[in-house]
Amino acid sequence: MDKLKERIRSEGRVLPGRILKVDGFLNHRVDMALMRNMADEFEKLFDIGGITAVLTVEASGIPLAAICAADWNVPLLFAKKAKSDNIEGGLYKSDIFSYTYRKNVTLLMSMQWLSSDDKVLIVDDFLANGEALRGLVDIVSQAGAELIGIGVAIEKGFQPGGKLMRDAGLNLISLAIIDEMDENTITFR
Amino acid sequence: MDKLKERIRSEGRVLPGRILKVDGFLNHRVDMALMRNMADEFEKLFDIGGITAVLTVEASGIPLAAICAADWNVPLLFAKKAKSDNIEGGLYKSDIFSYTYRKNVTLLMSMQWLSSDDKVLIVDDFLANGEALRGLVDIVSQAGAELIGIGVAIEKGFQPGGKLMRDAGLNLISLAIIDEMDENTITFR
Repeated sequence: MDKLKERIRSEGRVLPGRILKVDGFLNHRVDMALMRNMADEFEKLFDIGGITAVLTVEASGIPLAAICAADWNVPLLFAKKAKSDNIEGGLYKSDIFSYTYRKNVTLLMSMQWLSSDDKVLIVDDFLANGEALRGLVDIVSQAGAELIGIGVAIEKGFQPGGKLMRDAGLNLISLAIIDEMDENTITFR
Repeated sequence: MDKLKERIRSEGRVLPGRILKVDGFLNHRVDMALMRNMADEFEKLFDIGGITAVLTVEASGIPLAAICAADWNVPLLFAKKAKSDNIEGGLYKSDIFSYTYRKNVTLLMSMQWLSSDDKVLIVDDFLANGEALRGLVDIVSQAGAELIGIGVAIEKGFQPGGKLMRDAGLNLISLAIIDEMDENTITFR
């Protein structure tokens, strides 16, 4: 998606450790007009007819998934990363390793809101090692729901998540895939 | 807001410890059409002309704040609750106590995305003790930004947050204020 790639080129910064900072439009200060453009793009790329929900995980995937759900008139589901007072009993659980926070995290989703009657698109802002998405796919599978596909804004193509998921036969589409990056250059696939 | 109160009455459940579960439409499975109705209501209740951003805190405030920002054509800013690889240097910080997770949390916001040129509306899904909102107000104040007001979906009127903020002169508006609740009855102000 050219508009997204342009924003990554013009505003993204590559930090040591191959971290891509795009917090000015994607995951801290969020350009909702761009999120809506991405939702429109997903609508073209996936067969969203008949989906019953958009699924993501807290927190930074929520703005993009929320505008997808709003524009497609389906509920937004977001998996939680920690047990809170507001979530109890009957949970799907999937253990992942968060590279962002450098610790193990359990994704939680109430069984009440996802079942074998559902047909979902998973949406997230970033794909690198793919741990968060692996957890979401696992939750969809536990629920026996139908997975239409996985829509990602930015994929770090030099990390293993994308290949693992495509090799597993998942219908993964990323709007911008970065094959190489350093402080001077970002190369898209 | 009648539509919100009806949903709370018909779908909300009161758990021991005066916890209100509304995760079927507000903070786990999110009804984005209702979020949009709430955004429209905030637009009537606040003078949003000239605002430069909608500010919230991860995670459950994001869907509502995102649709506000999208519909008003301004960026969404969300404060983070933990240091990650994706956030560095120049941060506003505010320490709060999270009753939901029963621990101290530091709200973080990059100085790059909020300054004295900004005019913001704070939006959140819930107000009880008001710790999260106190942290956000503190961050707006540290930035020297102008605070138009605070828009909340559900306020637990029997907990101190709302009164503290109104007594402090803040322009706080909650779309549903619960004065009393038990397993059988929810009483709105």
